[in-house]
Amino acid sequence: MKKGCPFGTHRVIEPKGLLPQAAKKIDNTMEIYSNEILIDVITLNIDSASFTQIKEACNKDTRKMEEMILDIVNERGKMQNPVTGSGGMLIGTVKEIGPDFPDKSLKIGDKIATLVSLSLTPLKIEKIKKINIENDQVDIDGKAILFETGIYAKLPDDIPEKLALAALDVAGAPAQVAKLVKKGDTVCIIGGGGKSGILCSYQAMKNAGDTGKVIVVEYSEENAKRIKDMNLAHEVIIADATKPVEIYEKVLKVTDGKYCDVTINNVNVPDTEMSSILITKDEGVVYFFSMATSFTKAALGAEGVGKDITMIIGNGYTKGHADLTLQILRDSKEIKELFEKLYI
Amino acid sequence: MKKGCPFGTHRVIEPKGLLPQAAKKIDNTMEIYSNEILIDVITLNIDSASFTQIKEACNKDTRKMEEMILDIVNERGKMQNPVTGSGGMLIGTVKEIGPDFPDKSLKIGDKIATLVSLSLTPLKIEKIKKINIENDQVDIDGKAILFETGIYAKLPDDIPEKLALAALDVAGAPAQVAKLVKKGDTVCIIGGGGKSGILCSYQAMKNAGDTGKVIVVEYSEENAKRIKDMNLAHEVIIADATKPVEIYEKVLKVTDGKYCDVTINNVNVPDTEMSSILITKDEGVVYFFSMATSFTKAALGAEGVGKDITMIIGNGYTKGHADLTLQILRDSKEIKELFEKLYI
Ligand SMILES: NC(=O)c1ccc[n+]([C@@H]2O[C@H](COP(=O)([O-])OP(=O)(O)OC[C@H]3O[C@@H](n4cnc5c(N)ncnc54)[C@H](OP(=O)(O)O)[C@@H]3O)[C@@H](O)[C@H]2O)c1
Ligand SMILES: NC(=O)c1ccc[n+]([C@@H]2O[C@H](COP(=O)([O-])OP(=O)(O)OC[C@H]3O[C@@H](n4cnc5c(N)ncnc54)[C@H](OP(=O)(O)O)[C@@H]3O)[C@@H](O)[C@H]2O)c1
Repeated sequence: MKKGCPFGTHRVIEPKGLLPQAAKKIDNTMEIYSNEILIDVITLNIDSASFTQIKEACNKDTRKMEEMILDIVNERGKMQNPVTGSGGMLIGTVKEIGPDFPDKSLKIGDKIATLVSLSLTPLKIEKIKKINIENDQVDIDGKAILFETGIYAKLPDDIPEKLALAALDVAGAPAQVAKLVKKGDTVCIIGGGGKSGILCSYQAMKNAGDTGKVIVVEYSEENAKRIKDMNLAHEVIIADATKPVEIYEKVLKVTDGKYCDVTINNVNVPDTEMSSILITKDEGVVYFFSMATSFTKAALGAEGVGKDITMIIGNGYTKGHADLTLQILRDSKEIKELFEKLYI
Repeated sequence: MKKGCPFGTHRVIEPKGLLPQAAKKIDNTMEIYSNEILIDVITLNIDSASFTQIKEACNKDTRKMEEMILDIVNERGKMQNPVTGSGGMLIGTVKEIGPDFPDKSLKIGDKIATLVSLSLTPLKIEKIKKINIENDQVDIDGKAILFETGIYAKLPDDIPEKLALAALDVAGAPAQVAKLVKKGDTVCIIGGGGKSGILCSYQAMKNAGDTGKVIVVEYSEENAKRIKDMNLAHEVIIADATKPVEIYEKVLKVTDGKYCDVTINNVNVPDTEMSSILITKDEGVVYFFSMATSFTKAALGAEGVGKDITMIIGNGYTKGHADLTLQILRDSKEIKELFEKLYI
């Protein structure tokens, strides 16, 4: 059995020299190298941007969507949408473990969720069993490979696996909130009513405590009401985050003119960088979890208004992120029930 | 005299509701609001990406370039390249100060460099006097407006103004290095041989000290040799930063397998995110100053290899950045001489 590169470059077919994610085509032969594991896949959780693109291109016809997904995987050796570039994640059962795979506690038969993007995961689909058009999940018969540096979480017994899958998709966000928000902080969660936003709001309320203030900015009345009902913020503002001056005025009104120590951006639309920047105090932090963030708009935008703030690119991974996120589902009955309704 | 919005939204013509940078067209009437200042412009320093685009579109014909620049400013009210979206900065003399402008130490006649992008600065060009095709500088007769939140630096007497202009363009980078690098750190500067890279290398050597290690990765032999001759790094690696595995192997070789505490990315080409990520240690920091950085490539890339690192978007502004950068020119005769050769 040969040993592969820790990052999976041994499976890159073209262009050579790149890592699997940037590659156009990777080798999805389902025979493992000594530092890989083989997974029997149960369900794919396609990235929301990718799923939406496929859904629209196929007019919501699940038969056509099936064909499109199979074509992509046959062509590229991985489920990476060629238009959006994004992937998603999967859950499955461990079928084989290479002798050089570092985590010795993992056992054959363990159920895991991969926490690296499908855009770099070698995948072979034998059959698509069901496409759930409501929640981006695709049940399949198939196999996948995880590299030595690939991260994953063992699925717990006490949480339904599709619920875990939905929550783990955004596990990086609440875990970063846990690291960034301190007692007494003023925190704004932009797009706080969505999936990652709800988990971030919960964590921010916990960290900021009684002396802090958590503000959620949400677009729809419905999502805003949910946050209020669930008591996940001290203040909820209904507004459009692509309108920076409006957001600035509304947020500073509820804080009596105080800027935010930490701003978390969880929206799924472009052009919300300036709102995040304007409401943050000098030497404060903006954490951009949204994949619609533009690097240049953020960099030039902060400079343009002379804001000395730290802007962080939302790394999907941070140590302990899966455990922290699953624990939120255990601790908050309300969030668990809502997510069950939305994502199972 | 009316008072304007601190961010300049009072000058946005379309689309309304956006800030001046995101706007297509702004009002460049050279009559100030009470919280603005009016500047007699001497020289524009067009952003490198923008200047290159204009140069190529005009086949290096300075007459055509003149026309193109005038057209842009007439059309948009600001010097924002419609293809690259970027601007640049300017130097000039203060001609009028509104009574509500916050900095009371500023005087009429002071020479200043604006440190906010030209992509949001109301500008009127009366005449283009000279286009310097070598260093992106354009001497003009014209006027510009600075908003209340616009930042600027007074030009010192002891440094030639065009030298100051060239260095201040990238002032954010060495100032961030000063904040991020600690004694004993292992630091890698990717693209360390360029303008911002040289300033960052100097600052990193100073902060990391004898017990630290500064590594520069450069593409061209020529720029690499400069860094060696000037003693601005402990190790210089000639390699292509778009090849992550090669960079990873070469950097870890010179560090005896140690990952970097801080990585600074100063290149001017795309696809160098993964190199920066792979060489950085867990809980280390990558500072992306390069405007060619892709947000999604960085976010998904770090997750893809399970790296728990903090990735910072290169804000062009941080407190004291202009003073720190000008001081480097005073302290390092060699950098000053090199920059005089390259940028005056
Ligand atoms: N960095 C990473 O590693 C990573 C990993 C996974 C996901 N993500 C990204 O994280 C983002 C959020 O994901 P999610 O699953 O939480 O999405 P989501 O559930 O769709 O939530 C997005 C929220 O933003 C709100 N919103 C949309 N437009 C808005 C506007 N103009 N003003 C204010 N609020 C607005 C939405 O409200 P309405 O429903 O009312 O429109 C929704 O509540 C996405 O961009 C996703 O790509 C990043
Ligand atoms: N964040 C901000 O506010 C801000 C402000 C100003 C500028 N910037 C950005 O900062 C970046 C650097 O600006 P600068 O003025 O320092 O540019 P520069 O002087 O052109 O320096 C770029 C350096 O990168 C090197 N390089 C290019 N391709 C490379 C590769 N594949 N591998 C290794 N090195 C490579 C270049 O080497 P060769 O010369 O040998 O090709 C050069 O030494 C630009 O992207 C610019 O847009 C950001």
